[in-house]
Amino acid sequence: CDARRAFISGFDGSAGTALITQKEALLWTDGRYFLQAEKQLDHNWALMKDAIPGTPTQGEWLCKKLPSGSRVGVDPFVISYETWKPLAAQLESAGHTLVPINDNLVDEVWDNRPSPPNKTVDPLPLVFAGKGWRDKIVEIRQEMINKGATALVVTALDEIAWLFNLRGSDIEFNPVFFAYSVITLDNIYLFIDENKLSPEASKHLQIDVSLNHQNSGLSIELRPYRMIKEFLKWLISQLPGKIWISHKSSYSLVSVVPEMRRIESLSPVQLKKAVKNSVEIEGMKRSHIKDAVALCEFFAWLEEEVPKGDVNELSAAEKLEEFRRAQEDYMGPSFETISASGPNAAIIHYRSTEETNRPITADEIYLCDSGAQYRDGTTDVTRTIHLGTPSNFEKECFTRVVKGHIALASAIFPQLLKGQMLDTCARKALWDVGLDYLHGTGHGVGMFLNVHEGPMGISYRPYPDDPGLVEGMILSNEPGFYEEDKFGIRIENLVLIKKANTKYNFRNRGYLTFETITLVPIQTKLLQPSLLTSEEISWLDNYHQTCRDIVGKALEEQGKSSGLQWLLRETQPLG
Amino acid sequence: CDARRAFISGFDGSAGTALITQKEALLWTDGRYFLQAEKQLDHNWALMKDAIPGTPTQGEWLCKKLPSGSRVGVDPFVISYETWKPLAAQLESAGHTLVPINDNLVDEVWDNRPSPPNKTVDPLPLVFAGKGWRDKIVEIRQEMINKGATALVVTALDEIAWLFNLRGSDIEFNPVFFAYSVITLDNIYLFIDENKLSPEASKHLQIDVSLNHQNSGLSIELRPYRMIKEFLKWLISQLPGKIWISHKSSYSLVSVVPEMRRIESLSPVQLKKAVKNSVEIEGMKRSHIKDAVALCEFFAWLEEEVPKGDVNELSAAEKLEEFRRAQEDYMGPSFETISASGPNAAIIHYRSTEETNRPITADEIYLCDSGAQYRDGTTDVTRTIHLGTPSNFEKECFTRVVKGHIALASAIFPQLLKGQMLDTCARKALWDVGLDYLHGTGHGVGMFLNVHEGPMGISYRPYPDDPGLVEGMILSNEPGFYEEDKFGIRIENLVLIKKANTKYNFRNRGYLTFETITLVPIQTKLLQPSLLTSEEISWLDNYHQTCRDIVGKALEEQGKSSGLQWLLRETQPLG
Repeated sequence: CDARRAFISGFDGSAGTALITQKEALLWTDGRYFLQAEKQLDHNWALMKDAIPGTPTQGEWLCKKLPSGSRVGVDPFVISYETWKPLAAQLESAGHTLVPINDNLVDEVWDNRPSPPNKTVDPLPLVFAGKGWRDKIVEIRQEMINKGATALVVTALDEIAWLFNLRGSDIEFNPVFFAYSVITLDNIYLFIDENKLSPEASKHLQIDVSLNHQNSGLSIELRPYRMIKEFLKWLISQLPGKIWISHKSSYSLVSVVPEMRRIESLSPVQLKKAVKNSVEIEGMKRSHIKDAVALCEFFAWLEEEVPKGDVNELSAAEKLEEFRRAQEDYMGPSFETISASGPNAAIIHYRSTEETNRPITADEIYLCDSGAQYRDGTTDVTRTIHLGTPSNFEKECFTRVVKGHIALASAIFPQLLKGQMLDTCARKALWDVGLDYLHGTGHGVGMFLNVHEGPMGISYRPYPDDPGLVEGMILSNEPGFYEEDKFGIRIENLVLIKKANTKYNFRNRGYLTFETITLVPIQTKLLQPSLLTSEEISWLDNYHQTCRDIVGKALEEQGKSSGLQWLLRETQPLG
Repeated sequence: CDARRAFISGFDGSAGTALITQKEALLWTDGRYFLQAEKQLDHNWALMKDAIPGTPTQGEWLCKKLPSGSRVGVDPFVISYETWKPLAAQLESAGHTLVPINDNLVDEVWDNRPSPPNKTVDPLPLVFAGKGWRDKIVEIRQEMINKGATALVVTALDEIAWLFNLRGSDIEFNPVFFAYSVITLDNIYLFIDENKLSPEASKHLQIDVSLNHQNSGLSIELRPYRMIKEFLKWLISQLPGKIWISHKSSYSLVSVVPEMRRIESLSPVQLKKAVKNSVEIEGMKRSHIKDAVALCEFFAWLEEEVPKGDVNELSAAEKLEEFRRAQEDYMGPSFETISASGPNAAIIHYRSTEETNRPITADEIYLCDSGAQYRDGTTDVTRTIHLGTPSNFEKECFTRVVKGHIALASAIFPQLLKGQMLDTCARKALWDVGLDYLHGTGHGVGMFLNVHEGPMGISYRPYPDDPGLVEGMILSNEPGFYEEDKFGIRIENLVLIKKANTKYNFRNRGYLTFETITLVPIQTKLLQPSLLTSEEISWLDNYHQTCRDIVGKALEEQGKSSGLQWLLRETQPLG
């Protein structure tokens, strides 16, 4: 019911903005989606390629094209304050006005718009969460005191799920549920439709306050989901002091809080959530072993079935899901599997459909980017394979992508470095010969939460809220290369930030490095070994030995012999 | 007369901000100056170390410490609009107000304040500038039309010098002069005290309009320097349309232009100036050969004199200046020479004084960062040498600095990449063992203009106005390492951006690389060759061969035999 841009434009990628004037219709999206958008948009729509030289931003386009004194409408609940503010200023300086349209205009023309989801919300046991929700509230209140805030408005769904150790399924792939929360120093308000809470979730939220927390404002008051805006207005009139509401929240809510009383900084919940505790880390590693078992089975199956000529993108994705479903605590995919053969793999966020479905053969590269939600962790892994004889160009590109992947995986860097500063490591081997990829290199990943989370990331585009990298964060490492209409390559592992044992420690800043927690062999057949340094070969051999030790044991324990045979063959050392 | 912060605090580094309340006095500066500031500030002052975790920004400190409803004063002529705006907003959100104090309060207590300089302004002949000022005006007007501006206010002194092909000497080291300029589509206004203009400069500005430019608004109207603000007010009332005034201009001037009529983007003059034309590039290269001749003579002299025990930091700097003075079209140093021995070299922007002066001996590292202004170019070069037996730690650090220098010098990258994305290349070899340096890696350099210029740069700190790197820009490449109270290392060359001949050219983006134009040997004695890859050794050997070919020829032509002998010995191949 919220996919309004897909309804109005036809383009259903995960990122994009539709802009409609009386005469024109335009859609902005980024490099991951250029090909997909070109295919999905009809002749009424103009595609605006974000971040490509010459493409105006939405604000620039509006300022240039609109007759003076124009009013630009936007639904204030679907635009963040941080997007609203500069756009409003830019339009104002050109004589236009950005105006909130509370009744969304797409909804007016959307017959049969689906009703909002209303799935059950369940507690996430401490054995997976690692920290009780009351302890989290206590920590968050400390952050509020440090910041001088008397109330915190939490609007991001994954932050609410993390904070209260609850999980839901209102949004496909993301185990979250529709809710808002407001934390004051004395009260906790949760805005949710109460009938969503399972009996266990109700109990989890209401169980007796432990001794430590007695009388310290640690019981939850439930309020109806739709009441958040009215409540905020009331709270402002009742509670003195500053209200902390992230600039990433909707304009609709942020604008309720008078500027003088606002702290617009990033939510402290997002920062805490990004740094995993030891139980979460253990769970993430465990889920990655299970995931690797499923992937080894999948690739072994592919090798056996593809020559028979009956495997296609969709059937392969289904089979992979079947292998994952057999793993303990599997909850579903963490995003829609990208199962892409040949030219389809050049569409960075490709989604196979009946129309685009393509056989997987020994003649083309096959790229599979998939992930799962387990109760103990979230995975996101991409492998690129060739089941026949790759061309020299494909091998060179693959090798350079792997070189970039290794350079990032083995980087050592000072604590609190912005993730952006590591992006070049992953691209250097491609740039050396005039190649590149038009997407970021790494995003944060939740623990049985959203497969993309902030605030940090690794990209040539800045992450303005990146607090700097610290131990315990988990990110993806996913360089790629895409040759339009021919093939696509991406190698993606998740990496955990841990302390590096450096020979020196300049100014006691502390140095960090990555531990790769995704444990699936990288196809050595696609490598051009002459392009690899001896350090890179050692990295690959060590990585494959770790896969063999850890995943091999799990495959054995689970009696998955074809997966095990495949793993043993694919992890033979190069060096 | 403008060095108010140095007058009031005692700290005279090139960057810093003094903040004075009724009870406290604080000084913010960055990592280059921590040691210098600690030495220069007395007990009345607290040093605030910029960009170090835990150090509040000025705004944060003010919001936290001031009693509510405070008024914070600042001279609106010495704060840029881009600094004013967020600070004013931050203070406002904390209930304070930022107020312009038109009569600078430091001046009130500054007895014997020097009077403003009033040096002669001369034309820069076309043979050095490469493009006439009228052609530059025509290009700038095209930028104004593209941007929809009817007037452009030029406030940066180096932009005015570049635009009109004039050079002065009002500011030490920087061949600029006090002036403002306003360009409209029909008129050119230059705000300058007319008596500063040499007869040649007056002629240069007034000579008959050439055929091409006839009747196209290409004659200059001179106005008194102090009239700029009044003029702007008048212009706004007379001229319709948008006024382009960079957010880098002073709050005093920007605030004169109503927000609705303002274009705050970076001045187009800064962008054009950063991209050198072929005559400027030729001149820069020529000046670097002359500079290298002087440096070869200097290092040969040092080697001969130091053992006699009579050389110190100050006398060495003087001698270096003497060698440079002998070169054609030498105009003076481009900044105050950093001649630093032993622990003094750890002070990143050290300046030797009678009190700190230290002998140069065979027992300590000697770092010399210096540069010159020639009529055909500006130089900036740092070399670090040891005339005795360096320790293994010194050698390791030196080698890692050189590795970083080579990694940046040989980087290949896509056109329009932000310079920031290359910073990590220069640090990787240091980070690998837990070392780093707390300053940027590269700044733009003018052509017989300021030795530091924007808008691009290479640093972990973002350059928000970086338009992306393009062919023709000239930057420094200067990684370092500093061991407090022990030694300092920096290797700095200037590099010119040029096209790279890559095997592929993904999406026709164009790939770039650097050509090093500083041609002075890097001391191989300080290297630990076992830490170098064969590619790094080839780079060094090629570089030294180029020095030998080009500078050797110049030394020979100039009959500088001791410099030549030194060059030949110092450029022997490692490989």
